[in-house]
Amino acid sequence: MAHFPDVPRIVFEGPRSRSPFAFRDFDPDSKEVFEGRTLREHLRFAACFWHTMRNGLGDPFGAPTALMPWDDGSESLDNAKRRVDAFFEFLEKMRIDFWCFHDRDIAPEGRTLAESERHLHTIVAHCAEHQRSSGKRLLWGTANLFSHPRYASGAATSPNARVFMHAAAQVKHAIDATQALGGLGFVFWGGREGYSTLLNTDYAREQRQRSRFLRMAIDYADSVEFTGRFFIEPKPKEPSTHQYDTDAATTLEFLRAEGLIDRLWLNIETNHATLAGHTMEHELTVAAAAGKLGSIDANMGTANLGWDTDEFPIDTALCTRVMLIVLAAGGLEQGGLNFDAKRRRESFEPADLLHAHRAGMDAFARGVRAAAALRADGELASFVAHRYRSWSDDHARAIESGTLSLAECERLMRDAPEPTLESGRQEHLQSLVDEAVARSGHRTDDA
Amino acid sequence: MAHFPDVPRIVFEGPRSRSPFAFRDFDPDSKEVFEGRTLREHLRFAACFWHTMRNGLGDPFGAPTALMPWDDGSESLDNAKRRVDAFFEFLEKMRIDFWCFHDRDIAPEGRTLAESERHLHTIVAHCAEHQRSSGKRLLWGTANLFSHPRYASGAATSPNARVFMHAAAQVKHAIDATQALGGLGFVFWGGREGYSTLLNTDYAREQRQRSRFLRMAIDYADSVEFTGRFFIEPKPKEPSTHQYDTDAATTLEFLRAEGLIDRLWLNIETNHATLAGHTMEHELTVAAAAGKLGSIDANMGTANLGWDTDEFPIDTALCTRVMLIVLAAGGLEQGGLNFDAKRRRESFEPADLLHAHRAGMDAFARGVRAAAALRADGELASFVAHRYRSWSDDHARAIESGTLSLAECERLMRDAPEPTLESGRQEHLQSLVDEAVARSGHRTDDA
Amino acid sequence: MAHFPDVPRIVFEGPRSRSPFAFRDFDPDSKEVFEGRTLREHLRFAACFWHTMRNGLGDPFGAPTALMPWDDGSESLDNAKRRVDAFFEFLEKMRIDFWCFHDRDIAPEGRTLAESERHLHTIVAHCAEHQRSSGKRLLWGTANLFSHPRYASGAATSPNARVFMHAAAQVKHAIDATQALGGLGFVFWGGREGYSTLLNTDYAREQRQRSRFLRMAIDYADSVEFTGRFFIEPKPKEPSTHQYDTDAATTLEFLRAEGLIDRLWLNIETNHATLAGHTMEHELTVAAAAGKLGSIDANMGTANLGWDTDEFPIDTALCTRVMLIVLAAGGLEQGGLNFDAKRRRESFEPADLLHAHRAGMDAFARGVRAAAALRADGELASFVAHRYRSWSDDHARAIESGTLSLAECERLMRDAPEPTLESGRQEHLQSLVDEAVARSGHRTDDA
Amino acid sequence: MAHFPDVPRIVFEGPRSRSPFAFRDFDPDSKEVFEGRTLREHLRFAACFWHTMRNGLGDPFGAPTALMPWDDGSESLDNAKRRVDAFFEFLEKMRIDFWCFHDRDIAPEGRTLAESERHLHTIVAHCAEHQRSSGKRLLWGTANLFSHPRYASGAATSPNARVFMHAAAQVKHAIDATQALGGLGFVFWGGREGYSTLLNTDYAREQRQRSRFLRMAIDYADSVEFTGRFFIEPKPKEPSTHQYDTDAATTLEFLRAEGLIDRLWLNIETNHATLAGHTMEHELTVAAAAGKLGSIDANMGTANLGWDTDEFPIDTALCTRVMLIVLAAGGLEQGGLNFDAKRRRESFEPADLLHAHRAGMDAFARGVRAAAALRADGELASFVAHRYRSWSDDHARAIESGTLSLAECERLMRDAPEPTLESGRQEHLQSLVDEAVARSGHRTDDA
Repeated sequence: MAHFPDVPRIVFEGPRSRSPFAFRDFDPDSKEVFEGRTLREHLRFAACFWHTMRNGLGDPFGAPTALMPWDDGSESLDNAKRRVDAFFEFLEKMRIDFWCFHDRDIAPEGRTLAESERHLHTIVAHCAEHQRSSGKRLLWGTANLFSHPRYASGAATSPNARVFMHAAAQVKHAIDATQALGGLGFVFWGGREGYSTLLNTDYAREQRQRSRFLRMAIDYADSVEFTGRFFIEPKPKEPSTHQYDTDAATTLEFLRAEGLIDRLWLNIETNHATLAGHTMEHELTVAAAAGKLGSIDANMGTANLGWDTDEFPIDTALCTRVMLIVLAAGGLEQGGLNFDAKRRRESFEPADLLHAHRAGMDAFARGVRAAAALRADGELASFVAHRYRSWSDDHARAIESGTLSLAECERLMRDAPEPTLESGRQEHLQSLVDEAVARSGHRTDDA
Repeated sequence: MAHFPDVPRIVFEGPRSRSPFAFRDFDPDSKEVFEGRTLREHLRFAACFWHTMRNGLGDPFGAPTALMPWDDGSESLDNAKRRVDAFFEFLEKMRIDFWCFHDRDIAPEGRTLAESERHLHTIVAHCAEHQRSSGKRLLWGTANLFSHPRYASGAATSPNARVFMHAAAQVKHAIDATQALGGLGFVFWGGREGYSTLLNTDYAREQRQRSRFLRMAIDYADSVEFTGRFFIEPKPKEPSTHQYDTDAATTLEFLRAEGLIDRLWLNIETNHATLAGHTMEHELTVAAAAGKLGSIDANMGTANLGWDTDEFPIDTALCTRVMLIVLAAGGLEQGGLNFDAKRRRESFEPADLLHAHRAGMDAFARGVRAAAALRADGELASFVAHRYRSWSDDHARAIESGTLSLAECERLMRDAPEPTLESGRQEHLQSLVDEAVARSGHRTDDA
Repeated sequence: MAHFPDVPRIVFEGPRSRSPFAFRDFDPDSKEVFEGRTLREHLRFAACFWHTMRNGLGDPFGAPTALMPWDDGSESLDNAKRRVDAFFEFLEKMRIDFWCFHDRDIAPEGRTLAESERHLHTIVAHCAEHQRSSGKRLLWGTANLFSHPRYASGAATSPNARVFMHAAAQVKHAIDATQALGGLGFVFWGGREGYSTLLNTDYAREQRQRSRFLRMAIDYADSVEFTGRFFIEPKPKEPSTHQYDTDAATTLEFLRAEGLIDRLWLNIETNHATLAGHTMEHELTVAAAAGKLGSIDANMGTANLGWDTDEFPIDTALCTRVMLIVLAAGGLEQGGLNFDAKRRRESFEPADLLHAHRAGMDAFARGVRAAAALRADGELASFVAHRYRSWSDDHARAIESGTLSLAECERLMRDAPEPTLESGRQEHLQSLVDEAVARSGHRTDDA
Repeated sequence: MAHFPDVPRIVFEGPRSRSPFAFRDFDPDSKEVFEGRTLREHLRFAACFWHTMRNGLGDPFGAPTALMPWDDGSESLDNAKRRVDAFFEFLEKMRIDFWCFHDRDIAPEGRTLAESERHLHTIVAHCAEHQRSSGKRLLWGTANLFSHPRYASGAATSPNARVFMHAAAQVKHAIDATQALGGLGFVFWGGREGYSTLLNTDYAREQRQRSRFLRMAIDYADSVEFTGRFFIEPKPKEPSTHQYDTDAATTLEFLRAEGLIDRLWLNIETNHATLAGHTMEHELTVAAAAGKLGSIDANMGTANLGWDTDEFPIDTALCTRVMLIVLAAGGLEQGGLNFDAKRRRESFEPADLLHAHRAGMDAFARGVRAAAALRADGELASFVAHRYRSWSDDHARAIESGTLSLAECERLMRDAPEPTLESGRQEHLQSLVDEAVARSGHRTDDA
């Protein structure tokens, strides 16, 4: 039975299409390659279960609005299965290859952890069946350690050791579920691992607690030979006043200080980057430079709103900047582009789910085109290489190899003329990117 | 003598050009019309004297970097004239039709206002000559009432009445100069009309003071039959902690409360909009809805920086959103698109001035194309018209005409079923715009 | 029956008290007067029903946590009455004289407006009884026009005229309820009167719609001889991306443009001020200067969070700055200090309700002391008067009276020496206030 | 000869004083101890040369305003010496024990590094003499690697290796000068170590460059047996769009990744913390938890301004929060409280320098009193200890020691009842602090 009865399977029709259910720039079946990969191989799109199936679009000032005809509003297993059915129909119609889940969103929480685990098993089996028949794959799973009141003051960082233990048990079940579904990764997002006020918080102790927590999860994963990667997702605030994994660099600092750096990669989200006062490209660059770019939560925010709006990334310029870094890093390996995005509260019809994902997929397809065109053109890269060319002279190499001392520098420079400076050409370089964006779409006279 | 000897007159070469001094998408000579006007007629580009000729690119932590071979660093009239020469050469090479000035930037301040006026006269005469020979026109003039220490606590809103009088005299001279140059407008920007702390400020008195100031300027302009429009430019902060003309709505409130609304229009600047926590399209919409959209300071900011960065608007998506509103408002009349923009401090070579303006002009040309394409397509407009269609039924019209009371509404609705709701389709509409941006550039196979 | 059985009536014990349920600085029974009024007469504290009784402390990422033993979770009228019982017990124990309500929070919404009105009548009667027996008074009522999905795209500004009519009917009922309870005011807060995107919004039309809406409400109030004041409450964003009543000045602009300025006053909220990029004292000053300071929603935000946190105003410095303006404006007349504030999600015990209000009340009592001490001292005021003294000379008076022209100013100043400048002494003035704050508390050796 | 002829040596007069040149709460001669130290021993106030003597109070929109009668505006060595004379007179009159300098601010830059070094030597000798006669001590020195155009694209991170070498030479001279003056520390602030755009930046290379730079400086310091501590100062942006040492955690990450963590401590500045989206207490806590709290730049910002305003910390509440952490950390050791603060541009008289420092010193004295009172009272600390008490039970200790696995947690919890939760009591704890602030000042009836 179809849960999206009025919606056909989305096909590529190019820019002349007037159909709201057709791709303009993303052709999932195209064989065209960019740097050796098709669009689909580059983009590895994932849809997330929580926003797509469980987000009613309520906000702090208003009730949910989303129409979800497949959902009877109950916490029954039957309803949970029906949601999974609708979700896989959605994946199929959207031509999305991967998906992600939170444990408590796919299966109802029971009265005890044991009962919750039984629910999870049942639904995971149902998902596994859908995976088999559809060929869809699990990008990553995670445990929801932030919604329940027990986690109000933290999960791993709770002042209450029994809350920690409860969270640990929940993570075991979620890792088991992820493994059963062949997940490529497992994400930790510490929405409550932070503080509301430092006045009641033992900051140093809480760092130790969450270090132990991650170590226990890793040891368990090793013991069951889980092959997925562990990802950790930075966000500076919301729901907490301050979250410990503020941004990419702060998270790396924690992992490094606690000896965990070898076992976790970063899952970078656009709107989390902007909430931290950074650009998305900054966060991706920090992660990539540390060899820790794991996966991407593809969404965007609104510049003058101060909370996580999780909008769809309908912005070719943003997608171009993201893809420039992803292409330079050689791709996302075990990661993907997960649409951790929701519609606006006023876009409450099921069709809006498809419009929104379609729009994001087309924008990212254009982003690949624009980024690949810029890289093929080469002007950006050669400008940068030329800009640092002085670092290949003898003194510069001696600095890099540690054989030139401060005192020797001083001797060399004390009577030297001023260094010759060169323009950074920022406006020209920005224009190269802006122009590539403006030429990234298929043209109406192409198709 | 050429001050930009290595730079040719910028020509249109289209997207296949590799020349840094060629337009890719703006063709100043094109006869192609969009809604009845050529690109040049729509865009009415202006360059500003202060950033182009007087901004050394210093910042609060660093000395100026800009190379200005035509400038000997002195405050002499000869040097001032040479700057004007270089500026008009720049306008000519850039194919920019309009310009804007601050009084103290084109001519050196003297020891007295009388001497300053003499300097201004001399330079204005020199500019007038350049205008005659080049056909360039003055978009607007203004008086710099913020740089000198005497204005530290305000000009019109100074606690010192003699400072007010000094500023008034300076505005007289600046209006005279603007009139002499045939300026289409005169701008008030109150960078020091605000406060650093309310603790030492008589807020209500200062509103009266600046109301008087504007009234005196208008009366004077009338007495000399100045035909330019008065513009007032909102900005929320910087240099002051709080500036009175915070944003479009706040400025309208002041004009309305003081009975000045008929005589001033708004000059809206992108980066001022973002500093106020708004989008540029919000500010333009507020101004246009009040019939007060006067002119535009075309630049942009960086989302995560909290001060006025005055960057060049090298963002086709932004230009498209701006032009959607300008086209809907029927154009800018006596206003224009003034590049109130400066290069980054690292882009200190004269050539960067041309790169930066070129990039902004191409981006705005693409913005016109994208906006006109969206308007020609019509889906955006028809969606909006359809969305409000219920307001043409009988009850709705009675509400609008004031003949349906609250009590009658209550009687009609008390047993009525719930209104039927419809999706706002935001994601779909955003995608229409994003797609238009991505197809706005000339294609390499076009030219 | 007591709903707060473990909590005694809060008494004043002074700073040596170790009781969590005792005032340290607010003595509701004190006869001490500051500028002719007791603390209680100055402060006119109100508690709000929605946060105190209906806010379960959920957030966008988590379920409610608040323990509310008096609430069975149902939408029954019995439960609604029990909440009112608990609320009036709370008011009594807290020594708070006023209260505020939203229609849908005190009484359950029915299937039709007619049914909703019956529910409201029942609960209003119950509240009226409590008012009679306790002497508590209603500061203001309001209609919740933002929570229900029907209002997702606006109430007065809905694209659907029937939604407008529904909202109009709801406001009629809410005004009736407010009148029945002898409310001193009625508040309009337009949480959904704004837009999520301009792409689907007819901005100018929506302004006309809300102007009509307010006019209809005023006309109705006049027809039933409602004696309360109408307040309108600015907020820039959240839940909407942009709300029309952005801040005090923007709201005044709307009222003035629409001819409504004589009939509405502003209800200024601290956290809304900060979300708008202003200080609370700025918003109060703008309102007071226009003669439109109506009432205050007393809370505060956290500077680095970008949403409305509605924290309790536990900050004597903030309370002092607020009271400096309120005292200068001659008090709040028909308004009051409404604690539109909620506890943090981790403060979920009923006792926290009392701690939080107690803390806010003590802070405001200290604010009155500090502000009154500063005013009695007089240094602040005399500094300001002295600073503007030049405006009483002849030329300055001619400027103010409109008899000195720009040209005459120019003649007077053209050869004049530079005006003599004086320090604004900001740091010294800030210190006066900071010192007053630091001496505002009762001392442990006082009591 | 006196450069502040109208200003007496500041004395403690207590709160009844009407003198603008008297301490109200800071008594430098008081023998009263708080946790074993006098106010002076706790606070270790430093004044900085750059703001006090070299900041003319210009801003991006206006010329300098500060009156500095001792300064003839020249770059002569005589003028430089006279500034030093004025500065030491200032220190003496203000009763400030420590000072800080930038190399280029105390001595004029020469045409070559060799000449600059000679100038620096001359002025350092002059400072040393003043130190000897006055007993004042150098808290730290630093090299200005951000003002000169050569550093526009970075010093250590310049794309030009010769700029790196120039900066290295300058640091050698600055370390020599600091050592000659017995400085307790040396600060690195990388105002240009960052980027304006990632498009022209090799991020990973620049990290290596600055790591080398710091290592070379440390090696040199070791070779000359410099006993001062190296401090590094985080700031997220301004002047650069993005600076690498964004905040405390990001800086620690860099130090740890590069193996420099053992040799540098953090110099935390309030306004840099707020620009990074943090509170000052957050940054101090992060630094202290890592054992890396080195020194403090004591200033503050304005919440709704987005740039570094470097205001004087005239906020007893802020000072209290700072001192709570400093006292808990056992004091500042080799660090101090450096007033990296400037007057507002309107406070341009020499007397304002004294007002501003006086106000900040009194505020910090009250901060010590309030913090010490809170610690003596003990309620805050005992609340926190009690809150985490569950972590001393057997299972919790097994978690901490690494002997309880995820699977064992799961076994223990799978049928366990929900953990019992407790309120975080944030509002009550906030009130404890707010009350302490409001009782921190001497009382007018004390003295």
